[in-house]
Amino acid sequence: MDPLKPRLIPMNRRRRIYEGKAKVLYEGPEPGTLIQHFKDDATAFDAKKHEVIDGKGVLNNRISEYIFQNLNDIGVPTHFIRRLNMREQLIREVEIIPLEICVRNVAAGSLATRLGIEEGTQLPRSIIEFYYKNDELHDPMVSEEHITAFGWASPQEIDDIMALAIRVNDFLTGLFLGVGIRLVDFKMECGRLWEGDMMRIAVADEFSPDSCRLWDMKSNDKLDKDRFRRDLGGLVEAYTEVARRLGILQENEQPRASGPKLVR
Amino acid sequence: MDPLKPRLIPMNRRRRIYEGKAKVLYEGPEPGTLIQHFKDDATAFDAKKHEVIDGKGVLNNRISEYIFQNLNDIGVPTHFIRRLNMREQLIREVEIIPLEICVRNVAAGSLATRLGIEEGTQLPRSIIEFYYKNDELHDPMVSEEHITAFGWASPQEIDDIMALAIRVNDFLTGLFLGVGIRLVDFKMECGRLWEGDMMRIAVADEFSPDSCRLWDMKSNDKLDKDRFRRDLGGLVEAYTEVARRLGILQENEQPRASGPKLVR
Repeated sequence: MDPLKPRLIPMNRRRRIYEGKAKVLYEGPEPGTLIQHFKDDATAFDAKKHEVIDGKGVLNNRISEYIFQNLNDIGVPTHFIRRLNMREQLIREVEIIPLEICVRNVAAGSLATRLGIEEGTQLPRSIIEFYYKNDELHDPMVSEEHITAFGWASPQEIDDIMALAIRVNDFLTGLFLGVGIRLVDFKMECGRLWEGDMMRIAVADEFSPDSCRLWDMKSNDKLDKDRFRRDLGGLVEAYTEVARRLGILQENEQPRASGPKLVR
Repeated sequence: MDPLKPRLIPMNRRRRIYEGKAKVLYEGPEPGTLIQHFKDDATAFDAKKHEVIDGKGVLNNRISEYIFQNLNDIGVPTHFIRRLNMREQLIREVEIIPLEICVRNVAAGSLATRLGIEEGTQLPRSIIEFYYKNDELHDPMVSEEHITAFGWASPQEIDDIMALAIRVNDFLTGLFLGVGIRLVDFKMECGRLWEGDMMRIAVADEFSPDSCRLWDMKSNDKLDKDRFRRDLGGLVEAYTEVARRLGILQENEQPRASGPKLVR
């Protein structure tokens, strides 16, 4: 078989590479590519809380596409190639670094609790935190010392990750500010992207209201996954509002169009 | 009153500056000095567990004196001036940086739990951790990002602290190795020591089996505060053994000599 010729694999025969809580990765049409499928599943508190929220996957696929495409356009290296359909996007295969990189502008969630700062307090400056991706250990917070000691990333890679995190934060802060939304914090992941013998760090995973805290600037209403975590209801409506403000969905567009469902 | 003339204050009139869980700080005989008094109190788990262990304060005062004097001798800046009596030492007043600096050589305690590493596993290299000193928040782990964002220490001060932590770890590892003890980890504190307009970071607080994990190299017996935390008993005997091996106590010396008791 010619490795340069794209292999077109019918969807029901695609090899599943990895299934996470909210996404599935399938083998892609070409070597070095994968298909990222957005599920409707919402989980919180180490998946102790779990629900299927009709339409969430479709919205996250669109919002994440929009943000990744813009990051590509401003020269931030990412894994994103293009959206394929309502629930799926084509991405470059990267070697995921086992860290959740959390960038915080305003105290909320675990930072507010851990350091005793009232939720909503503007931080003196943006703070980058690292969490070790490990469900069993409940994603413990780690420092650069742990990361380098255990070889999860090199000091140079940490520097690259932090530089990317700052660029992404600058861009997203501006983007959301422009549509009346306060970017409280967000979580991102990075991976090693190999091009021949050259490796560079690229932004991977997703950007969506699942992974960002987004507060309406006027009302302070939460437009993100905290609606699910805190049983506030109206999650799909909030995500739809984010997509509408970003100009991804038209006023009259059906947000709940479900697209091809995940074959279970 | 001549500020250059030492003020000799009778013990029962000394002003108490600060009382912690295991020590009390009193005003010192000269400006810029304090008296550090070692109590017999042992606490663990945010002081939920508390006991008075007769003789612990005397042992810690002697062990800490020995280590600080040696650190001074090798040129590590510390707050230590000299021991005054069985329970007290004269120290320089420093502006305490609100961090517990934990240096770990072998996985134990919270690191073992948090990262799922078996206790006793040699770490790939020494790891320096920072905890924010705040009883109410249970001393949460923090990273350089939090420390600099909240202004607890500057990046330069963090560099100085880490350099001191490495020097102390090198010295203590060697010292204990020489007497058949494995230095698993230890906790230290630092402060800003002002000399006129000049400021430098100095090592403060104490070094004792309260703040170090010390395992006998042959038997792996714990010779530290874990005997109290884990209800193993024989705490004074273990601390006495450490003092004896370091040559601080003679074979026939009474370790439980209690010295002047704290006036409550």
